[in-house]
Amino acid sequence: MTKERLEKGLTQVYTGNGKGKTSAALGLALRAIGWGLKAHMIQFIKGGNFKHGELQIIKQLPDFETRAFGRGRYIKEQPPLEEDVKLAKEALRFARKIVNTGDYDIVILDEINVALHLKLIKTDEVIELIENKPRHVELILTGRYAPSEIIDAADLVTEMREVKHPYAQGILDRKGIEY
Amino acid sequence: MTKERLEKGLTQVYTGNGKGKTSAALGLALRAIGWGLKAHMIQFIKGGNFKHGELQIIKQLPDFETRAFGRGRYIKEQPPLEEDVKLAKEALRFARKIVNTGDYDIVILDEINVALHLKLIKTDEVIELIENKPRHVELILTGRYAPSEIIDAADLVTEMREVKHPYAQGILDRKGIEY
Repeated sequence: MTKERLEKGLTQVYTGNGKGKTSAALGLALRAIGWGLKAHMIQFIKGGNFKHGELQIIKQLPDFETRAFGRGRYIKEQPPLEEDVKLAKEALRFARKIVNTGDYDIVILDEINVALHLKLIKTDEVIELIENKPRHVELILTGRYAPSEIIDAADLVTEMREVKHPYAQGILDRKGIEY
Repeated sequence: MTKERLEKGLTQVYTGNGKGKTSAALGLALRAIGWGLKAHMIQFIKGGNFKHGELQIIKQLPDFETRAFGRGRYIKEQPPLEEDVKLAKEALRFARKIVNTGDYDIVILDEINVALHLKLIKTDEVIELIENKPRHVELILTGRYAPSEIIDAADLVTEMREVKHPYAQGILDRKGIEY
Protein backbone atom coordinates (compact mmCIF):
# COMPACT_ATOMS: atom_id res chain seq x y z
CA MET A 1 0.00 0.00 0.00
CA THR A 2 1.34 3.42 -0.87
CA LYS A 3 1.81 5.55 2.15
CA GLU A 4 0.24 8.96 1.86
CA ARG A 5 0.78 11.49 4.61
CA LEU A 6 -2.10 13.63 5.78
CA GLU A 7 -1.86 17.00 4.14
CA LYS A 8 -2.74 18.66 7.40
CA GLY A 9 -3.02 16.88 10.72
CA LEU A 10 -5.43 18.34 13.23
CA THR A 11 -5.64 18.28 16.99
CA GLN A 12 -8.73 16.42 18.17
CA VAL A 13 -10.06 16.25 21.72
CA TYR A 14 -12.50 13.68 23.13
CA THR A 15 -13.70 14.69 26.56
CA GLY A 16 -16.81 14.55 28.77
CA ASN A 17 -18.25 12.15 31.32
CA GLY A 18 -19.64 9.63 28.82
CA LYS A 19 -18.31 6.31 27.58
CA GLY A 20 -16.36 6.01 24.34
CA LYS A 21 -13.46 8.47 24.50
CA THR A 22 -10.53 6.05 24.38
CA SER A 23 -12.58 3.72 22.17
CA ALA A 24 -13.14 6.51 19.64
CA ALA A 25 -9.40 7.18 19.54
CA LEU A 26 -8.73 3.46 19.03
CA GLY A 27 -11.30 3.28 16.25
CA LEU A 28 -9.73 6.28 14.54
CA ALA A 29 -6.31 4.65 14.72
CA LEU A 30 -7.75 1.44 13.29
CA ARG A 31 -9.21 3.35 10.35
CA ALA A 32 -5.94 5.18 9.76
CA ILE A 33 -3.78 2.06 9.75
CA GLY A 34 -6.30 0.60 7.32
CA TRP A 35 -5.06 3.21 4.85
CA GLY A 36 -1.40 2.53 5.61
CA LEU A 37 -0.84 5.29 8.14
CA LYS A 38 1.07 4.70 11.38
CA ALA A 39 -0.35 5.20 14.88
CA HIS A 40 1.08 5.46 18.37
CA MET A 41 -0.93 5.59 21.59
CA ILE A 42 0.76 6.98 24.69
CA GLN A 43 -1.23 6.33 27.84
CA PHE A 44 -1.13 8.68 30.81
CA ILE A 45 -2.31 7.34 34.20
CA LYS A 46 -3.18 3.92 32.75
CA GLY A 47 -0.64 1.14 32.99
CA GLY A 48 0.83 -0.86 35.84
CA ASN A 49 -0.46 -4.38 36.17
CA PHE A 50 -3.87 -3.54 34.84
CA LYS A 51 -4.32 -4.97 31.35
CA HIS A 52 -6.71 -3.47 28.83
CA GLY A 53 -8.16 -5.69 26.10
CA GLU A 54 -7.10 -3.34 23.34
CA LEU A 55 -3.44 -3.87 24.20
CA GLN A 56 -3.79 -7.60 23.50
CA ILE A 57 -4.88 -6.98 19.95
CA ILE A 58 -2.82 -3.88 19.12
CA LYS A 59 0.29 -6.01 19.60
CA GLN A 60 -0.87 -8.06 16.63
CA LEU A 61 -1.55 -5.07 14.38
CA PRO A 62 0.93 -3.57 11.95
CA ASP A 63 1.77 0.11 12.34
CA PHE A 64 0.15 0.58 15.74
CA GLU A 65 2.28 0.94 18.84
CA THR A 66 1.43 1.77 22.41
CA ARG A 67 3.19 2.60 25.63
CA ALA A 68 1.66 3.18 29.06
CA PHE A 69 3.26 5.32 31.74
CA GLY A 70 0.85 5.32 34.64
CA ARG A 71 0.29 3.09 37.61
CA GLY A 72 -3.17 2.04 36.46
CA ARG A 73 -5.09 3.34 39.44
CA TYR A 74 -7.29 6.32 40.11
CA ILE A 75 -5.41 9.30 41.48
CA LYS A 76 -7.23 11.19 44.17
CA GLU A 77 -4.51 12.85 46.22
CA GLN A 78 -4.14 16.62 45.95
CA PRO A 79 -1.34 17.53 45.74
CA PRO A 80 -0.57 14.36 43.72
CA LEU A 81 2.10 11.88 44.71
CA GLU A 82 5.59 12.51 43.41
CA GLU A 83 5.57 9.14 41.67
CA ASP A 84 2.48 10.02 39.63
CA VAL A 85 3.95 13.40 38.64
CA LYS A 86 7.20 11.72 37.61
CA LEU A 87 5.42 9.18 35.41
CA ALA A 88 3.21 11.80 33.75
CA LYS A 89 6.23 13.99 32.99
CA GLU A 90 7.99 10.98 31.52
CA ALA A 91 4.92 10.26 29.35
CA LEU A 92 4.92 13.85 28.10
CA ARG A 93 8.62 13.75 27.28
CA PHE A 94 8.09 10.51 25.38
CA ALA A 95 5.05 11.97 23.58
CA ARG A 96 7.08 15.00 22.49
CA LYS A 97 9.73 12.71 21.07
CA ILE A 98 7.22 10.51 19.20
CA VAL A 99 5.30 13.50 17.81
CA ASN A 100 8.42 15.33 16.68
CA THR A 101 9.97 12.38 14.81
CA GLY A 102 7.02 12.76 12.42
CA ASP A 103 7.12 8.99 11.88
CA TYR A 104 3.63 8.49 13.30
CA ASP A 105 0.67 10.01 11.48
CA ILE A 106 -1.72 9.59 14.40
CA VAL A 107 -0.54 10.13 17.97
CA ILE A 108 -3.04 9.44 20.75
CA LEU A 109 -2.38 11.03 24.14
CA ASP A 110 -4.77 8.89 26.13
CA GLU A 111 -6.12 10.35 29.39
CA ILE A 112 -3.82 13.36 29.07
CA ASN A 113 -6.77 15.62 29.95
CA VAL A 114 -7.02 13.89 33.32
CA ALA A 115 -3.27 14.30 33.87
CA LEU A 116 -3.72 18.03 33.20
CA HIS A 117 -6.75 18.27 35.45
CA LEU A 118 -4.80 16.63 38.27
CA LYS A 119 -1.90 19.04 37.63
CA LEU A 120 0.53 16.18 37.02
CA ILE A 121 1.77 18.12 33.97
CA LYS A 122 1.44 21.73 32.84
CA THR A 123 -1.13 22.90 30.29
CA ASP A 124 1.41 25.28 28.73
CA GLU A 125 3.68 22.39 27.84
CA VAL A 126 0.88 20.52 26.08
CA ILE A 127 -0.18 23.67 24.19
CA GLU A 128 3.41 24.03 23.05
CA LEU A 129 3.40 20.42 21.84
CA ILE A 130 0.18 21.09 19.89
CA GLU A 131 1.47 24.30 18.36
CA ASN A 132 4.84 22.92 17.32
CA LYS A 133 3.87 19.48 16.02
CA PRO A 134 4.86 18.51 12.47
CA ARG A 135 2.12 19.64 10.07
CA HIS A 136 1.06 16.13 8.96
CA VAL A 137 0.68 14.67 12.47
CA GLU A 138 -2.88 14.19 13.80
CA LEU A 139 -2.96 14.54 17.59
CA ILE A 140 -5.77 12.97 19.61
CA LEU A 141 -6.20 13.94 23.26
CA THR A 142 -8.62 11.98 25.41
CA GLY A 143 -9.96 12.11 28.93
CA ARG A 144 -12.53 13.90 31.05
CA TYR A 145 -12.02 17.45 32.21
CA ALA A 146 -10.16 18.87 29.19
CA PRO A 147 -9.00 22.32 30.35
CA SER A 148 -10.45 25.26 28.38
CA GLU A 149 -6.98 26.23 27.10
CA ILE A 150 -6.74 22.79 25.44
CA ILE A 151 -10.18 23.17 23.89
CA ASP A 152 -9.13 26.57 22.55
CA ALA A 153 -5.94 25.13 21.04
CA ALA A 154 -7.68 22.13 19.42
CA ASP A 155 -9.30 22.06 15.98
CA LEU A 156 -11.99 19.47 16.66
CA VAL A 157 -13.58 18.81 20.02
CA THR A 158 -16.24 16.24 20.87
CA GLU A 159 -17.87 15.94 24.25
CA MET A 160 -19.07 12.46 25.16
CA ARG A 161 -22.10 13.16 27.28
CA GLU A 162 -23.53 10.43 29.48
CA VAL A 163 -27.24 10.20 28.74
CA LYS A 164 -27.91 6.89 30.44
CA HIS A 165 -25.68 4.47 32.34
CA PRO A 166 -26.55 1.16 33.98
CA TYR A 167 -25.05 1.99 37.39
CA ALA A 168 -28.28 0.80 38.93
CA GLN A 169 -27.74 -2.61 37.39
CA GLY A 170 -24.39 -2.82 39.19
CA ILE A 171 -22.53 -3.11 35.91
CA LEU A 172 -19.45 -0.95 35.95
CA ASP A 173 -16.41 -2.81 34.82
CA ARG A 174 -16.72 -5.76 32.50
CA LYS A 175 -13.73 -7.48 30.92
CA GLY A 176 -14.02 -7.19 27.15
CA ILE A 177 -16.25 -4.11 27.32
CA GLU A 178 -15.08 -1.56 29.86
CA TYR A 179 -11.43 -2.70 29.71
CA MET B 1 -7.08 -17.79 24.75
CA THR B 2 -10.01 -19.11 26.71
CA LYS B 3 -13.25 -17.75 25.49
CA GLU B 4 -15.44 -16.29 28.20
CA ARG B 5 -18.89 -15.07 27.32
CA LEU B 6 -20.17 -11.84 28.82
CA GLU B 7 -22.40 -12.65 31.75
CA LYS B 8 -24.85 -10.03 30.61
CA GLY B 9 -24.65 -8.17 27.34
CA LEU B 10 -26.09 -4.66 27.30
CA THR B 11 -27.52 -2.48 24.60
CA GLN B 12 -25.38 0.59 24.03
CA VAL B 13 -26.25 3.61 21.89
CA TYR B 14 -23.83 6.20 20.49
CA THR B 15 -25.69 9.14 19.03
CA GLY B 16 -25.41 12.93 18.62
CA ASN B 17 -23.94 15.31 16.07
CA GLY B 18 -20.30 14.91 17.13
CA LYS B 19 -17.47 12.86 15.69
CA GLY B 20 -16.54 9.45 17.09
CA LYS B 21 -19.69 7.31 17.10
CA THR B 22 -18.63 4.59 14.67
CA SER B 23 -15.04 4.94 15.88
CA ALA B 24 -16.13 4.27 19.46
CA ALA B 25 -17.95 1.14 18.34
CA LEU B 26 -14.86 -0.01 16.42
CA GLY B 27 -12.64 0.64 19.43
CA LEU B 28 -14.99 -1.35 21.65
CA ALA B 29 -14.90 -4.26 19.22
CA LEU B 30 -11.11 -4.08 19.15
CA ARG B 31 -10.98 -4.27 22.92
CA ALA B 32 -13.41 -7.18 22.98
CA ILE B 33 -11.54 -9.26 20.43
CA GLY B 34 -8.41 -8.57 22.46
CA TRP B 35 -10.01 -10.72 25.15
CA GLY B 36 -11.03 -13.44 22.70
CA LEU B 37 -14.60 -12.32 22.10
CA LYS B 38 -16.13 -12.23 18.61
CA ALA B 39 -17.50 -9.12 16.91
CA HIS B 40 -19.68 -8.42 13.89
CA MET B 41 -20.43 -4.99 12.44
CA ILE B 42 -23.48 -4.62 10.22
CA GLN B 43 -23.56 -1.31 8.39
CA PHE B 44 -26.79 0.39 7.44
CA ILE B 45 -26.67 3.11 4.72
CA LYS B 46 -22.89 2.77 4.32
CA GLY B 47 -21.55 0.53 1.57
CA GLY B 48 -21.56 0.68 -2.21
CA ASN B 49 -18.28 1.65 -3.79
CA PHE B 50 -17.26 3.86 -0.92
CA LYS B 51 -14.46 2.25 1.05
CA HIS B 52 -13.83 3.02 4.69
CA GLY B 53 -10.32 2.56 6.09
CA GLU B 54 -11.51 0.39 8.94
CA LEU B 55 -12.71 -2.27 6.51
CA GLN B 56 -9.17 -2.66 5.16
CA ILE B 57 -7.81 -3.60 8.55
CA ILE B 58 -10.78 -5.52 9.96
CA LYS B 59 -10.28 -8.06 7.17
CA GLN B 60 -6.91 -8.83 8.73
CA LEU B 61 -8.25 -9.22 12.27
CA PRO B 62 -9.37 -12.49 13.80
CA ASP B 63 -12.92 -12.70 15.13
CA PHE B 64 -14.15 -9.46 13.60
CA GLU B 65 -16.50 -9.55 10.64
CA THR B 66 -18.39 -6.84 8.81
CA ARG B 67 -21.05 -6.53 6.16
CA ALA B 68 -22.42 -3.36 4.60
CA PHE B 69 -25.89 -3.07 3.12
CA GLY B 70 -26.25 0.52 1.98
CA ARG B 71 -25.41 2.40 -1.15
CA GLY B 72 -22.85 4.59 0.58
CA ARG B 73 -24.51 7.90 -0.12
CA TYR B 74 -26.53 10.36 1.91
CA ILE B 75 -30.25 9.78 1.73
CA LYS B 76 -32.32 12.91 1.54
CA GLU B 77 -35.52 11.86 -0.22
CA GLN B 78 -38.70 11.71 1.83
CA PRO B 79 -40.37 9.33 1.30
CA PRO B 80 -37.14 7.34 0.78
CA LEU B 81 -36.39 5.42 -2.40
CA GLU B 82 -37.61 1.84 -2.58
CA GLU B 83 -34.03 0.64 -3.10
CA ASP B 84 -32.85 2.22 0.18
CA VAL B 85 -35.79 0.73 2.09
CA LYS B 86 -35.09 -2.69 0.60
CA LEU B 87 -31.40 -2.60 1.60
CA ALA B 88 -32.15 -1.42 5.13
CA LYS B 89 -34.73 -4.18 5.61
CA GLU B 90 -32.20 -6.69 4.34
CA ALA B 91 -29.63 -5.34 6.81
CA LEU B 92 -32.10 -5.71 9.67
CA ARG B 93 -32.98 -9.28 8.67
CA PHE B 94 -29.27 -10.12 8.55
CA ALA B 95 -28.70 -8.41 11.91
CA ARG B 96 -31.49 -10.46 13.49
CA LYS B 97 -29.90 -13.64 12.19
CA ILE B 98 -26.42 -12.71 13.43
CA VAL B 99 -27.68 -11.61 16.86
CA ASN B 100 -29.82 -14.68 17.37
CA THR B 101 -27.10 -17.23 16.52
CA GLY B 102 -25.40 -16.01 19.70
CA ASP B 103 -22.05 -16.69 18.02
CA TYR B 104 -21.00 -13.04 18.18
CA ASP B 105 -20.49 -11.42 21.56
CA ILE B 106 -20.53 -7.87 20.20
CA VAL B 107 -22.88 -6.91 17.38
CA ILE B 108 -22.58 -3.36 16.01
CA LEU B 109 -25.55 -1.97 14.10
CA ASP B 110 -23.75 0.94 12.49
CA GLU B 111 -25.87 3.94 11.45
CA ILE B 112 -29.06 2.10 12.35
CA ASN B 113 -30.30 5.23 14.16
CA VAL B 114 -30.17 7.12 10.86
CA ALA B 115 -32.04 4.29 9.10
CA LEU B 116 -34.73 4.61 11.79
CA HIS B 117 -34.81 8.38 11.54
CA LEU B 118 -35.31 8.13 7.76
CA LYS B 119 -38.05 5.56 8.33
CA LEU B 120 -36.26 2.94 6.23
CA ILE B 121 -37.06 0.42 8.98
CA LYS B 122 -39.49 0.38 11.88
CA THR B 123 -38.51 1.27 15.44
CA ASP B 124 -40.74 -1.52 16.81
CA GLU B 125 -38.74 -4.14 14.96
CA VAL B 126 -35.46 -2.88 16.42
CA ILE B 127 -36.96 -2.74 19.94
CA GLU B 128 -38.04 -6.34 19.46
CA LEU B 129 -34.49 -7.28 18.42
CA ILE B 130 -33.12 -5.57 21.55
CA GLU B 131 -35.63 -7.22 23.87
CA ASN B 132 -35.21 -10.73 22.48
CA LYS B 133 -31.44 -10.89 21.99
CA PRO B 134 -29.49 -13.71 23.65
CA ARG B 135 -28.47 -12.61 27.14
CA HIS B 136 -24.71 -12.60 26.53
CA VAL B 137 -24.80 -10.50 23.34
CA GLU B 138 -23.74 -6.84 23.59
CA LEU B 139 -25.58 -4.71 21.03
CA ILE B 140 -24.12 -1.40 19.89
CA LEU B 141 -26.30 1.00 17.91
CA THR B 142 -24.71 4.04 16.30
CA GLY B 143 -25.81 7.08 14.33
CA ARG B 144 -27.31 10.52 14.81
CA TYR B 145 -30.94 10.99 15.66
CA ALA B 146 -31.53 7.92 17.86
CA PRO B 147 -35.32 7.83 18.39
CA SER B 148 -36.45 8.24 22.00
CA GLU B 149 -37.94 4.72 22.02
CA ILE B 150 -34.45 3.34 21.29
CA ILE B 151 -32.93 5.43 24.07
CA ASP B 152 -35.58 4.10 26.44
CA ALA B 153 -34.84 0.50 25.43
CA ALA B 154 -31.05 0.86 25.74
CA ASP B 155 -28.98 0.34 28.89
CA LEU B 156 -26.17 2.77 28.14
CA VAL B 157 -26.46 5.86 25.98
CA THR B 158 -23.73 8.34 25.09
CA GLU B 159 -24.32 11.49 23.12
CA MET B 160 -21.36 12.70 21.10
CA ARG B 161 -21.78 16.44 21.18
CA GLU B 162 -19.90 18.60 18.69
CA VAL B 163 -18.10 21.30 20.67
CA LYS B 164 -15.81 22.50 17.90
CA HIS B 165 -15.33 21.45 14.29
CA PRO B 166 -12.94 22.79 11.67
CA TYR B 167 -15.59 23.44 8.99
CA ALA B 168 -14.12 26.89 8.60
CA GLN B 169 -10.80 25.32 7.66
CA GLY B 170 -12.55 23.47 4.83
CA ILE B 171 -11.58 20.12 6.30
CA LEU B 172 -14.47 17.73 6.12
CA ASP B 173 -13.49 14.43 4.68
CA ARG B 174 -9.94 13.19 4.93
CA LYS B 175 -8.88 9.70 3.93
CA GLY B 176 -7.43 7.95 6.96
CA ILE B 177 -9.31 10.15 9.41
CA GLU B 178 -12.93 10.74 8.42
CA TYR B 179 -13.17 7.50 6.40
